[in-house]
Amino acid sequence: MGRSRILSGMRPTGRLHIGHLMVLENWVKLQEEYECFYFIADWHALTTAYEETEELKANIRYMLVDWLSAGLNPNLSTIFIQSHIKEHAELHLLFSMFTPLSWLERVPTYKDQLQQLGQEGKDVSTYGFLGYPLLQAADILIYKADAVPVGEDQLPHLEFCREVARRFNYLYKTQLFPEPQALLSRVPLLPGIDGRKMSKSYRNDIPLSATPEEVRERVRLMVTDPARIHKTDPGHPEVCVVHTYHEIFNPEELEETRKSCRAGTIGCVPCKARLAEKINAYLEPVRERREKFLHNPGILEDILAQGSARARAIAQRTMDEVRAAMGIK
Amino acid sequence: MGRSRILSGMRPTGRLHIGHLMVLENWVKLQEEYECFYFIADWHALTTAYEETEELKANIRYMLVDWLSAGLNPNLSTIFIQSHIKEHAELHLLFSMFTPLSWLERVPTYKDQLQQLGQEGKDVSTYGFLGYPLLQAADILIYKADAVPVGEDQLPHLEFCREVARRFNYLYKTQLFPEPQALLSRVPLLPGIDGRKMSKSYRNDIPLSATPEEVRERVRLMVTDPARIHKTDPGHPEVCVVHTYHEIFNPEELEETRKSCRAGTIGCVPCKARLAEKINAYLEPVRERREKFLHNPGILEDILAQGSARARAIAQRTMDEVRAAMGIK
Ligand code: SF4
Ligand code: SF4
Repeated sequence: MGRSRILSGMRPTGRLHIGHLMVLENWVKLQEEYECFYFIADWHALTTAYEETEELKANIRYMLVDWLSAGLNPNLSTIFIQSHIKEHAELHLLFSMFTPLSWLERVPTYKDQLQQLGQEGKDVSTYGFLGYPLLQAADILIYKADAVPVGEDQLPHLEFCREVARRFNYLYKTQLFPEPQALLSRVPLLPGIDGRKMSKSYRNDIPLSATPEEVRERVRLMVTDPARIHKTDPGHPEVCVVHTYHEIFNPEELEETRKSCRAGTIGCVPCKARLAEKINAYLEPVRERREKFLHNPGILEDILAQGSARARAIAQRTMDEVRAAMGIK
Repeated sequence: MGRSRILSGMRPTGRLHIGHLMVLENWVKLQEEYECFYFIADWHALTTAYEETEELKANIRYMLVDWLSAGLNPNLSTIFIQSHIKEHAELHLLFSMFTPLSWLERVPTYKDQLQQLGQEGKDVSTYGFLGYPLLQAADILIYKADAVPVGEDQLPHLEFCREVARRFNYLYKTQLFPEPQALLSRVPLLPGIDGRKMSKSYRNDIPLSATPEEVRERVRLMVTDPARIHKTDPGHPEVCVVHTYHEIFNPEELEETRKSCRAGTIGCVPCKARLAEKINAYLEPVRERREKFLHNPGILEDILAQGSARARAIAQRTMDEVRAAMGIK
């Protein structure tokens, strides 16, 4: 028996931010224990962005560089682009034949997202948006993943995927698909510099590719305890974004930071300066890896070619089995 | 400019009957004027028969032999199996991203069929069944067909396909897809031997591969004018299935048949015997071609390989254009 296989993907939203780094560091860790498949979900991006595809190609490239900079290792993991493996589309189509509409309609996030995106002026009441969890099920099952790293909010999608696997196995009297398990991973959630959810579109993010100077500038703009006007006013670190970041990037000085903030013995300016240096130190190895990949452009193509070949071989084998089980050639 | 391209498909329901021959003869005729693509729609078969796929492979083979026996010429037409051209699935998936659910829900046949099949105990309230016209649109558009031979009842499906083409062209600022035209073809509708719709499942059909003896037997069982008990009773050919068949297979003796039936000067037994001989004469060239294909088993593989190669080359070229237009690689 080999190592257990896990699979995870991300939509190519373009340059990643430091919040994504928390997710990626989890992926990097998983590489040691699991056989990992990480894919850039460009088809999924189309479910909500079919009208704005001009930047898709550039976004894929940015994301790949960010992944590698964060420490994903193409020799340990299979890294590929979803749309390069056409078999995902075929399996999605075959699954569609026996997947009740009602299963898709009752995926909890469906109605929520439809409404939320509608409020943002995006009409996603499309066939593809409804079928998104089914495409995801195909993504996972085509590699017979044993487990999928998920957050709590994605559990319904995974349960849907397990239902699809069970239905296939039942209908075609087979054990072809294992039911992937949830690998619940606790990834620290970093707020944006304004305290809201970090997002490029809110312009409240710290890009993963920020220079040291840019990091200092973003940290300088972070919202702090609004009650603090003078340096000597006692602060409330629990409402301060800077403090949340100290928790992640400067745990060794956390107690001291809290104490001096509450006592009014440290000003927000030096508190932020200290954080910025910590973040920059943290990002140092990420920056070094990025340099390597940027100065060696051919390497990205090589990594994708190698990842695609590995993924395709497995996907094709699964599809042969699927077609045989379903009686199609 | 080459000839206009048309495309049509059939679900592999197994051995075809003499009613299908009317459709196939239209296809054969179209070969002379158009560049024809004829495909076996095995993925479509799954939309309603995902639970009974044991016979799919055999059904495809039977149908292919029936097609060739009816006179489809692989040197004139591109004959292939849908599932061999994976690009249909990819295009279907890409189309799904921008196709409103409401377009699919309002295809007139959708609710009807859902109900009708439901009454037959078949639950087809699946994602794939809803998406069936979209897969059909991908089938047609991937070859940039100029026209599609359709009956009146299929016009809404074709209009749906044209809407998808327009939406793609609009969204991605292109003229990539022509809007296929309807090629309305009047195909004689043959009733089953009991007067109902001809269908293998009603066991009221005359198989295309019936032997002369089997044809005579099926014709002998045809329902005639129920008012005729004695040969001398005046008959009403307009209510007689045998008469309907005489219209197609024995037009030169039609007037005489009608007259002697109405006058009560011919019995149903000789009237049927005459029809059976006409049908058998009609089927003679079909039988000869069938013999040729049955005694040369390798030829079917060759025909499919050649058809697949031709279809795939075009489908791949279209997909390259589609991906470029949509900004995917
Ligand atoms: S001293 Fe630091 S933790 Fe306290 S409010 Fe200012 S920035 Fe926040
Ligand atoms: S004589 Fe021929 S047409 Fe008239 S009822 Fe009999 S079978 Fe029908």
